[in-house]
Amino acid sequence: MTYSKAKNKLGKQTLAFSNRPLIASGGAIVGVKEGQGPLGSWFDMVLKEDTFGEKTWEKSESKMLKEAVQMAMARGGKEPKDIEAILTGDLLNQLMSSAFMARDMQIPFIGLYGACSTMAESLLMGSVLIDGGYCNHIVAGASSHYCTAERQFRMPLEHGNQRPPSAQWTATAAGAILLAAGKQDILEERPLVIDGSSSAPSTEKRVCVTHGTLGKIIDTGLKDSNQMGAAMAPAFVDTVLNHLEDTGRQLADYDLILSGDLGYVGKQIAVDLLADAGIPMKDLLNIYDDCGVMIYEKEQDTHSGGSGCGCSASVFTGYVYKQMKKGQLKRVLLISTGALLSTISPGQGESIPGIAHAVCVETC
Amino acid sequence: MTYSKAKNKLGKQTLAFSNRPLIASGGAIVGVKEGQGPLGSWFDMVLKEDTFGEKTWEKSESKMLKEAVQMAMARGGKEPKDIEAILTGDLLNQLMSSAFMARDMQIPFIGLYGACSTMAESLLMGSVLIDGGYCNHIVAGASSHYCTAERQFRMPLEHGNQRPPSAQWTATAAGAILLAAGKQDILEERPLVIDGSSSAPSTEKRVCVTHGTLGKIIDTGLKDSNQMGAAMAPAFVDTVLNHLEDTGRQLADYDLILSGDLGYVGKQIAVDLLADAGIPMKDLLNIYDDCGVMIYEKEQDTHSGGSGCGCSASVFTGYVYKQMKKGQLKRVLLISTGALLSTISPGQGESIPGIAHAVCVETC
Repeated sequence: MTYSKAKNKLGKQTLAFSNRPLIASGGAIVGVKEGQGPLGSWFDMVLKEDTFGEKTWEKSESKMLKEAVQMAMARGGKEPKDIEAILTGDLLNQLMSSAFMARDMQIPFIGLYGACSTMAESLLMGSVLIDGGYCNHIVAGASSHYCTAERQFRMPLEHGNQRPPSAQWTATAAGAILLAAGKQDILEERPLVIDGSSSAPSTEKRVCVTHGTLGKIIDTGLKDSNQMGAAMAPAFVDTVLNHLEDTGRQLADYDLILSGDLGYVGKQIAVDLLADAGIPMKDLLNIYDDCGVMIYEKEQDTHSGGSGCGCSASVFTGYVYKQMKKGQLKRVLLISTGALLSTISPGQGESIPGIAHAVCVETC
Repeated sequence: MTYSKAKNKLGKQTLAFSNRPLIASGGAIVGVKEGQGPLGSWFDMVLKEDTFGEKTWEKSESKMLKEAVQMAMARGGKEPKDIEAILTGDLLNQLMSSAFMARDMQIPFIGLYGACSTMAESLLMGSVLIDGGYCNHIVAGASSHYCTAERQFRMPLEHGNQRPPSAQWTATAAGAILLAAGKQDILEERPLVIDGSSSAPSTEKRVCVTHGTLGKIIDTGLKDSNQMGAAMAPAFVDTVLNHLEDTGRQLADYDLILSGDLGYVGKQIAVDLLADAGIPMKDLLNIYDDCGVMIYEKEQDTHSGGSGCGCSASVFTGYVYKQMKKGQLKRVLLISTGALLSTISPGQGESIPGIAHAVCVETC
């Protein structure tokens, strides 16, 4: 098979960003439960209560996303007037959180829907805008909220429904990244206080987006909406294998392969499928982790771990990106995974389409 | 105010596509009522019944979108394996029509949500991917269906609710465009039979996308979801004025300014607002029209005209694009307009955020 010869394309599904869009800054905000998890101290803001002072859960989520976007801009020394486009999405019908955030920001808005794959989708399309010379500053982000997702996709919380062990817990979280043209003068990000010690910006690594791999839908016919990890794992594996083939790399070329939110069940399926595809298990176990597994302690009773657009958005922005700036990680493949069912499709007998978009992020 | 100096950016909100992505082909499909409208003979397919042989309205809509996508590919002499990305959206919760279409196509999928602005949003982002050298062939499209939108946003049809005169009729329609790198060898589009006469491809003009203007949200506080045209008109005007300022052009530089779906009420408001902004009324009346006004006859009892993502998608793809290929129109500004309310937001007291994205399309 011969592939497109587009000049910034590698192989079948991978775009190459030769101008290396810079991750100039980020903002990650999470809810109470996520703040109590193992990454709690890394997030830039932990809510004292998940309402965030709003009267509805949807407004709470929108306010979280807005806060994350404003944090990313402020830390990058930018104001709304400097930002040329904002690319975000969420799980809510008609992107309610994103639309009302963008209304308040008065920045040109591109709404994206990729379910929980949205953070990688927005980073990928944002990087295209920067790398191609169409914009110098954009914000990419995503959000989710346990209480909005539960009542939209499942049952009102007041019902007290039991959740099966394979169910995941939609993270109350938002993350936003300021992407900038690498050659631009970006004000240094404000010093971060991490683990109680102040790390001066001058010693921090610059972090860039170097590739994006567009995901296609994989649907194995699974219909159980309490098995999201299982529904998304094959799409994750498809995108990983395509990325490696397109770039001619091996898994060992990465310091971290990070799936969006497969959770415990989906992560194990992904490991098995990658092993079946010939990926050496020892390479895999050393460098593969999942945001849904990372965000909560086992003891927090979330069953199969976290999910939601905000899960990979906050874990990448709040934790992984900061590890990269500290030089702890040099090359990371972030693969946010989405289950493209709708509020209506399961009732019409449809199975769950999975998708996974990837961005390769490197210190540069 | 100084603006970004990104090399492919004009002014504040406009991207310039110097490589001129080619509109290689298109497919437009509409329902029964739309087929009976004044543009009926221009659409590539008119359904005999709006179910399209499916058991649910949502599946009917998804099948329409798939049919439009397949038509665009076939007319451009391409197969799914040649298409590097598909960018579509619709009005349904979690983009149900698009997701299930993309599942069947097995092409990398970027889901977009811009309500009825989606066709311009997908053409704009698709043009970025082509113009920037990231892809050589993509499909951009959008769909809507009267019966899915009514029951999702308003009432089940069986209720027989009365509609006020300002209400618009969601078009049962889908449109898809095959965008190609201009320098690529594209197989000639198959001859179209228009008005009974066969027009040979060799005499047809090539049609390119030259600019895209990203829209920002304008919300004037309007809360009546039967006044969508009024809610979207200010965003349309904002995008038009920004486009003209960014490009240094006047309205008279265009053969047609085409709003997505403001309908009769919204179109009149847009005319008034543009006149207030100093646009000469005589220029305006000669060259401005609205897809929602064009798609139905007054006598078809749709009240304020058509709406829905499929409205501008089908009118542009089925009619305007063909007029351009025939040389009847040389430069068109398509501005699809979206109302970013959700199924939940009006019940929470929220007003209706409007947005409008624009693409400038020219014969080349």
